[in-house]
Amino acid sequence: MVRGAPAIAIVGCLSLAVEIQPEVFTDKKILRQEVEGKLNYLVSARPTAVNMKLAADELISLVNALDKDELVSAEQMKKKFLGAIETMLEKDIADNRAIGDAGANAVLSHCSGDSMVRILTHCNTGTLATAGYGTALGVIRSLHSLGRLEHVYCTETRPYNQGARLTAYELVHDKIPATLVCDSMVSALMRARSITAVVVGADRVATNGDTANKIGTYQIAVVAKHHGVLFYVAAPFTSIDFSIPSGEHIVIEERPEREMSHVADHRIAAPGINCWNPAFDVTPANLITGIITEKGVFSPSELAKHLKTGSDYPHS
Amino acid sequence: MVRGAPAIAIVGCLSLAVEIQPEVFTDKKILRQEVEGKLNYLVSARPTAVNMKLAADELISLVNALDKDELVSAEQMKKKFLGAIETMLEKDIADNRAIGDAGANAVLSHCSGDSMVRILTHCNTGTLATAGYGTALGVIRSLHSLGRLEHVYCTETRPYNQGARLTAYELVHDKIPATLVCDSMVSALMRARSITAVVVGADRVATNGDTANKIGTYQIAVVAKHHGVLFYVAAPFTSIDFSIPSGEHIVIEERPEREMSHVADHRIAAPGINCWNPAFDVTPANLITGIITEKGVFSPSELAKHLKTGSDYPHS
Repeated sequence: MVRGAPAIAIVGCLSLAVEIQPEVFTDKKILRQEVEGKLNYLVSARPTAVNMKLAADELISLVNALDKDELVSAEQMKKKFLGAIETMLEKDIADNRAIGDAGANAVLSHCSGDSMVRILTHCNTGTLATAGYGTALGVIRSLHSLGRLEHVYCTETRPYNQGARLTAYELVHDKIPATLVCDSMVSALMRARSITAVVVGADRVATNGDTANKIGTYQIAVVAKHHGVLFYVAAPFTSIDFSIPSGEHIVIEERPEREMSHVADHRIAAPGINCWNPAFDVTPANLITGIITEKGVFSPSELAKHLKTGSDYPHS
Repeated sequence: MVRGAPAIAIVGCLSLAVEIQPEVFTDKKILRQEVEGKLNYLVSARPTAVNMKLAADELISLVNALDKDELVSAEQMKKKFLGAIETMLEKDIADNRAIGDAGANAVLSHCSGDSMVRILTHCNTGTLATAGYGTALGVIRSLHSLGRLEHVYCTETRPYNQGARLTAYELVHDKIPATLVCDSMVSALMRARSITAVVVGADRVATNGDTANKIGTYQIAVVAKHHGVLFYVAAPFTSIDFSIPSGEHIVIEERPEREMSHVADHRIAAPGINCWNPAFDVTPANLITGIITEKGVFSPSELAKHLKTGSDYPHS
């Protein structure tokens, strides 16, 4: 199973690249139809992640242009299409490193002198969710490589335990000092130990800065506000969906009850109980300190300017 | 394993009752020493739960008085001691019913006409945690029997899943309309559906109303405040510890990492990750709407009056 919004887009496109075998598609029109059909399916499979839709739109435009261009052969069309996917992958890794560095600087700008920072993160946004390095975990990696990271706390991230399984794995692997907490312990942690900042990823950011991310993110934002803790969202610019004005327009996927009632084959909930299992929630912009992108860190209200000037508008 | 502060006291005392076999203890002094030693051990095993200490203090006073009274034989001493434990058990059930009714009235006093209520609860405070009926779950049972309960939401209560296992079991058993949510979903739930009130139990309430309860309670109180949702603590008067002025004096038990890293024998956290596993947290009085006891519902600031006048002081 592939998860993490950027990884969904990358792996979706790469799987398409594998399927477009040279020996099967020798007709440009059939190639275009195949690409368009597969990409639209991938977009519909994960409605909350905007990256997939943006990547799909870009690739569909490309195959349509190549299909119309009579100077391009079917073979050349395939080559250019695969080249575009490869470029996307490379850009994703470079963007993650830029996000990591921008985020580290933003967090450190709130600290005096050479003081160390303590970061809390939710879900997984690392090399297991992106093409590499990570978004929120990229910020953590950058802080660690600068020698300014004292400790990371990661939440379990129920019900699918991406924090306990994946983020914890990456932190142990990278020898970053880290502690796992249950989702219910964030407030107690913020009272017991000073946390410098929360840094999380995003599945989709609306024009006003409202952010859809893994269920539980909104609750952490509420308790961060209550405890006066900085709350950053780290996401590539492609996660910003300028086609929607606010989070009210974000469709939240609901997932099967079994994901909550069982851990592997082990039942953990009483038989017969109903479960509510939304995969994401929306954090309102007013709870977000800043949105860390590869183009810099923006306050939520600054995003709309990018739409108006169009200078950094990803669809322009 | 026995859990739930009132149940710990009741079962602790009942287990002692079983151990005090007539054929073994025929000497009053040995009986007194045995009772005192066992009760002090039970108190030290669960430092957060104040009920055990109060029950122990009462029983130790009793055996000391009986030991000194030369008119009481060893046989009579045992009989009076066992009778005192039985009375405690009966009082616990009666108190729970009184808590349930007082809490239902308090919640309904905020509702217009015959409108139905939606309640969120955390951990387990039902027949599986008390002698019977329950504290917070007693309030829910009373609302249900009044026909005013639309729906109950119960949290999983990680890491030991008392909500998913025990509360969900009791709600399914009693055919009370209920839905399980992850601890991380409470804020999203409060935004998605109107919740009338949160009702939770308590392991220990300080004189100023600060309340120690299962880890995660404090976080629910923070998000209830943020969403303007009523937040009630339901607990017998014996859970109020007038010997401590505030929650700062409450010792929080930390539990083994394995409780977080494993579900039964199934590992759910990456090997090598540290875990922080406090069993309880303290909810400050300013986040609590009211404390529901068998003697009525009090605002946190009203508790101190009981100490000053001594009218309802449980140790007087």
